[in-house]
Amino acid sequence: MTDVPQPDSMSPISLEEAMRAPRIAIEATEPAVDDGRYPAKTIIGQPVDVSSKIFADGHDQLAAVVCWRQKGEQNWRRARLKLITNDLWQGHFTPTQVGPHEFRIESWWDLWETYRYELSKKHGAGVPVQLELEEGRLHLERAVQRAQGETRAVLEDIMHRLASSHLDDERVSVMLASETAAAMADADAREHCSVSHVFPLEVERPLAQFASWYELFPRSETDSPDRHGTLRDVIKRLPAIRDMGFDVLYFPPIHPIGRKHRKGPNNSLEAGPQDPGSPYAIGSEEGGHEAIHPELGTVDDFRALVSAAADHGLEIALDFAIQCSQDHPWLEQHPGWFSWRPDGTIRYAENPPKKYQDIVNVDFYAEDAMPDLWIALRDVVQGWVDLGVKVFRVDNPHTKPLPFWQWLIADIRSRDPDVMFLAEAFTRPAMMARLGKVGFNQSYTYFTWRNTKAELTEYLTELNEPPLRYCYRPNFFVNTPDINPFFLHSSGRPGFLIRAALATMGSGLWGMYSGFELCESAPLPGKEEYLDSEKYQIRPRDYRAPGNIIAEIAQLNRIRRQNPALQTHLGFKAYTAWNDNILFFGKRTADRSNFILIAINLDPHNAQEAHFELPLWELGLPDGAQTHGEDLMNGHRWSWYGKTQWTRLEPWNLPFGIWRWTVPAVEQNG
Amino acid sequence: MTDVPQPDSMSPISLEEAMRAPRIAIEATEPAVDDGRYPAKTIIGQPVDVSSKIFADGHDQLAAVVCWRQKGEQNWRRARLKLITNDLWQGHFTPTQVGPHEFRIESWWDLWETYRYELSKKHGAGVPVQLELEEGRLHLERAVQRAQGETRAVLEDIMHRLASSHLDDERVSVMLASETAAAMADADAREHCSVSHVFPLEVERPLAQFASWYELFPRSETDSPDRHGTLRDVIKRLPAIRDMGFDVLYFPPIHPIGRKHRKGPNNSLEAGPQDPGSPYAIGSEEGGHEAIHPELGTVDDFRALVSAAADHGLEIALDFAIQCSQDHPWLEQHPGWFSWRPDGTIRYAENPPKKYQDIVNVDFYAEDAMPDLWIALRDVVQGWVDLGVKVFRVDNPHTKPLPFWQWLIADIRSRDPDVMFLAEAFTRPAMMARLGKVGFNQSYTYFTWRNTKAELTEYLTELNEPPLRYCYRPNFFVNTPDINPFFLHSSGRPGFLIRAALATMGSGLWGMYSGFELCESAPLPGKEEYLDSEKYQIRPRDYRAPGNIIAEIAQLNRIRRQNPALQTHLGFKAYTAWNDNILFFGKRTADRSNFILIAINLDPHNAQEAHFELPLWELGLPDGAQTHGEDLMNGHRWSWYGKTQWTRLEPWNLPFGIWRWTVPAVEQNG
Repeated sequence: MTDVPQPDSMSPISLEEAMRAPRIAIEATEPAVDDGRYPAKTIIGQPVDVSSKIFADGHDQLAAVVCWRQKGEQNWRRARLKLITNDLWQGHFTPTQVGPHEFRIESWWDLWETYRYELSKKHGAGVPVQLELEEGRLHLERAVQRAQGETRAVLEDIMHRLASSHLDDERVSVMLASETAAAMADADAREHCSVSHVFPLEVERPLAQFASWYELFPRSETDSPDRHGTLRDVIKRLPAIRDMGFDVLYFPPIHPIGRKHRKGPNNSLEAGPQDPGSPYAIGSEEGGHEAIHPELGTVDDFRALVSAAADHGLEIALDFAIQCSQDHPWLEQHPGWFSWRPDGTIRYAENPPKKYQDIVNVDFYAEDAMPDLWIALRDVVQGWVDLGVKVFRVDNPHTKPLPFWQWLIADIRSRDPDVMFLAEAFTRPAMMARLGKVGFNQSYTYFTWRNTKAELTEYLTELNEPPLRYCYRPNFFVNTPDINPFFLHSSGRPGFLIRAALATMGSGLWGMYSGFELCESAPLPGKEEYLDSEKYQIRPRDYRAPGNIIAEIAQLNRIRRQNPALQTHLGFKAYTAWNDNILFFGKRTADRSNFILIAINLDPHNAQEAHFELPLWELGLPDGAQTHGEDLMNGHRWSWYGKTQWTRLEPWNLPFGIWRWTVPAVEQNG
Repeated sequence: MTDVPQPDSMSPISLEEAMRAPRIAIEATEPAVDDGRYPAKTIIGQPVDVSSKIFADGHDQLAAVVCWRQKGEQNWRRARLKLITNDLWQGHFTPTQVGPHEFRIESWWDLWETYRYELSKKHGAGVPVQLELEEGRLHLERAVQRAQGETRAVLEDIMHRLASSHLDDERVSVMLASETAAAMADADAREHCSVSHVFPLEVERPLAQFASWYELFPRSETDSPDRHGTLRDVIKRLPAIRDMGFDVLYFPPIHPIGRKHRKGPNNSLEAGPQDPGSPYAIGSEEGGHEAIHPELGTVDDFRALVSAAADHGLEIALDFAIQCSQDHPWLEQHPGWFSWRPDGTIRYAENPPKKYQDIVNVDFYAEDAMPDLWIALRDVVQGWVDLGVKVFRVDNPHTKPLPFWQWLIADIRSRDPDVMFLAEAFTRPAMMARLGKVGFNQSYTYFTWRNTKAELTEYLTELNEPPLRYCYRPNFFVNTPDINPFFLHSSGRPGFLIRAALATMGSGLWGMYSGFELCESAPLPGKEEYLDSEKYQIRPRDYRAPGNIIAEIAQLNRIRRQNPALQTHLGFKAYTAWNDNILFFGKRTADRSNFILIAINLDPHNAQEAHFELPLWELGLPDGAQTHGEDLMNGHRWSWYGKTQWTRLEPWNLPFGIWRWTVPAVEQNG
């Protein structure tokens, strides 16, 4: 009988179809995004835990495997699935290459295991088994006919031993032997084999799941607002950034800035002659998305920066903002890429309620734009990849067509699967998730607006569960040039420590826009925006200013490097602390070998105390067990006795505790 | 631009594919079972509530419709969907035929509504709108070119009015007019139209969702165990069954009973010469599944019974048990339909831990069985359908191939979509659900083993939610010949009232095996089975025996008929009663016009009291509102003042309360 694929539609079927249809049901397979319509995300070298509900009529035993391969490979690799309970089967495999992969489930009637189980039960109960032994012999006989080479020789030998034995007990032993089982598995006819449809899987490099981002405006790397910082200036600051423990250094657009409708300080509509303008108004007579703003430097300077960053263990991330200033070269060169109004203007961009008078958008579906614009944009990205950039932060991807992203990301990654894209979308949940589905490797999140214990617990839990678990990698930015969170306006330094602890401990990916380490928070009155925003001005900073939290950030990043449980947002679990101002949670690796407990006082103004519960049950320990804690911020170690413990967190000291939790090794008694 | 279907797979796409791919995302559509792989279940004449997440890049407005039709029809009917919140769109349609239907979602860029919204906002803010008016004129001009007939005339008239007007305000009024909107909708170019895949829908008659089943062994319709009851005897009992309010009268198999390995009383392996045997051991020299056991009567008697039942408003349900006694004619006529062991026997049936030595199973995948056996079984069902039977209870369907059921049910229903199948499967959850997916119209459930408040709340909630909501119609049997629930062994009469109230109020479908109304519960010691089970003996009963609960059952069924909220398991919601022994819940129609509150004391031995919360918030009423209650068991009426109320439920009186809850009509003041 040939293997039977699971049909996509199960509408009324003809008798012929029914007789050929899969007898074994395979459903609820994970990891899957929209039942396999989009790839699930995973990381090279980490086990992919596969599960599926597999069942059929009757009570016979089934066998199941997961078959997997890199996309384009001819042959499947196989890993056995194991029945856990209630038709749930589980197994795993570990990809060793980045790029698109795929897997499927196969399941068939396990005739020999069914037979073995019955024989052993009957024999064990002392029931005569002559008939069963004869049935076993017939199974073996058919298997010999199917088998080849080594397996055939083994089976022939087994049959010979059976034939030459005269004691039932002896023949039962042969039938139940694991050697016989192994040979029968090799020669399995795989009756009624069902095959699931194929599930795509995107395997990415570790930086897709574990990275600390630092954002700065290169033009502000200067000691005076009158001197435009340069890419060479940024090189000087790399050691300090690396010392804080960051992996990715990200710049807002570095391209020539338009002059028409240029914005002045604080987003004013009229710029003065010295105002640098928003770097998001891309393009001028000096060039467009492929060019570097002359005041920042040259392509050679950029090459030097990428290379110096690499020497410090840093990757450069660029902003990919598909929009044009009103004097971007494309407006003249490719008027057919834009949608013109009857008065000969182009509508300026809006992201309600924000208005961008200095920016216009391309029209992806304009006749002249297909495919020229699509290809031009791809070539822009490819050009920067060719200069060594592997990480892109994409501006407002939710205002560009989803199929465009799906194509562009796959196209770029088909040549270099190390390239990654971070979606800067702040919009409704369905679109946020869909951007992950179509290929974005990381995403901005609602983290910035989750402040209470209930909000944070719910959000972190949701990110750990399907469907988001498989399609959405959250990058927790504590601030951005566009977001000066209300919480920080009045929290003072403790608030910055609280948000840094939440971001670094909550997700493997977090990000910080410069100024955060100095606890900058002066807002435009009543708005979640920065006063004198760096988007419109050059803002030199004194990074040694008192009250900074650089040491704490460096320590948080160091703890992350040393503890695999903290290198992903997965493995989060909220635990009980009897105080609504204290969020108490754990992050642990799948095998529990790295178990971090985190308690954060969410109140930046008052000390908070609470009894909390050590999750001893997760380690199979009784309520009175002794465990060890190690404070990862200050190195203190102690023993905890029992489940209920107590802590006090003082904002003026350190508003959080991060503890590595271990079980004492069993004492060696002589 | 032509409509773009949503592709089934979204794996990396080429540029050509991407440019043609749907720009608008349509996902999470309901009602759907496994994303449309199986039909969702619905009832003729009841609105199908459709919802979908629909979104696209950018901020322009979308339009969406659900298109639906009976399977095989050429044209789609259309119903508009409305945006609710967060990309969720909703609408509904009401099928007027039973049988397979299908629907799909279409969504496109609503250019005119986007334009109208912007024009009205700008005009309202006093901004000059000459440019917008010209854009509107161009929209209209293009629409006229597309439009035909009446619409074209209307649009031309609108353009004429615009041209002849010299006041902006006047032209804005024309642009914003609903008449203009209607004409523009008719002439809509439906730009970027996305089309979801097709979702199947099975429309069934009301009896699939609302029915009360009564089960009896016809042979027990006698006054003495020595006289075999007949189909004609059953006719005499029809009025009493109908008086109790039942709609479906169901018999265990009525076919000739095998003699080989016939079971004696209490499932003993040796039957005496007078023992009638289990009716599930189907087939003897007198015939097989198509025949009637001679002692029950003739085909003419059966016809008379079906007809008499119909006169009383009752439908007859037969048992379809695909199994053979060891002397079923098929064993000789079609040996190739069975799997023979080396000693010339067939393995007897088992449903672990139960053993059926008097029964053997067919082998659906034996070479000779495909397709002859499949067709023969279909013909058996069709034969009974031809005799007027429209309802079948299927014995152990989970031990027969799923594709067989999928074909058989669709095949039978393709000729008569009024035919229904009830799955008697007691197995693991995935298979229970899958049987519903492949076509079973109703299913036995875990209800019999859900006794505590927590268990019942969880189970009823689960049945109300996807996926079960759409694929699984629960028939709550309070007992069966195979299940004498532990709870009833020691509960006495109050326990029977409790379970009857839970079943009748919990689901639109419930069932009772005769003897329940007499509070019979004598068990095989330590087992959930009946002592002297009717499966192996003739058991005459005195239905007037004291202590019976016939009046209560009749009243419960009467209440169900009078209240649409009780004619389905859907619309269940658990509410708060501060006593873990009192289950307090509501059943309400979607429009809340029929709102039933039910409080059940789950403790058959003690009176229980509780404060409980009237769900005033569901009606938008304040906590202090006055509402009315009507006790549907005894007709008492009263006013409730406020949210928190109190009740006491006494097992020796009536262990439950059923209240119709209404809001007083607003007083007419002169």
